[in-house]
Amino acid sequence: MKIVPHFSDQEGQRFHGDVVRGVTGRIIIGKDDGADNFCMRVFTIEPEGFTPCHVHEWEHEIFFHQGNGQVLQGGEWKDVSAGSVVFVPGNEEHQIRNNAESELTFVCLVPKGAPEL
Amino acid sequence: MKIVPHFSDQEGQRFHGDVVRGVTGRIIIGKDDGADNFCMRVFTIEPEGFTPCHVHEWEHEIFFHQGNGQVLQGGEWKDVSAGSVVFVPGNEEHQIRNNAESELTFVCLVPKGAPEL
Repeated sequence: MKIVPHFSDQEGQRFHGDVVRGVTGRIIIGKDDGADNFCMRVFTIEPEGFTPCHVHEWEHEIFFHQGNGQVLQGGEWKDVSAGSVVFVPGNEEHQIRNNAESELTFVCLVPKGAPEL
Repeated sequence: MKIVPHFSDQEGQRFHGDVVRGVTGRIIIGKDDGADNFCMRVFTIEPEGFTPCHVHEWEHEIFFHQGNGQVLQGGEWKDVSAGSVVFVPGNEEHQIRNNAESELTFVCLVPKGAPEL
């Protein structure tokens, strides 16, 4: 059993550029832990930050832990906040942005075969 | 894309007896949503409540969203709180309890083939 007292204990990787802004990602449970079926990552987005608008074959299962933000669904931005859940099926375009004044934190899981980060 | 504004919007099932006490479980993303690889459930445990002490073949990937509690690891109770993460490999005994005065809420994911709730 692996117990991580707080996800921020694990080292993060920051993504910051034109297509992604102010995003830090962490692999919390992955292949290195013996998790062969799916991978848990935790992302934080700084205020005014966003993930890339993209599409890929694998699905996302997302749980919003903290903050307020928006998810792009069929060209429209929908509000999410702590306790919201989003399922993005494979091959559906998606993007998440932080339009609030505090960090947005969410857990995002991907199946095996997808890049872990 | 499925957006659930808050996990508590989905109907829960309460488990309350000798081996499990004060636990409400919700399937938030499952087979009915087209999630074929893994399933997201959210559980709340009332103060003094606990999940069953049990063992099964499949793994758990757990993210603690709110509250304070403890996880049984090799016969010892370890503290967890909002932001903690636990990976329970298959075939390892585990139990979670709420030893605090407010609800304990966690996200618990299981691979396909495991019971969704």
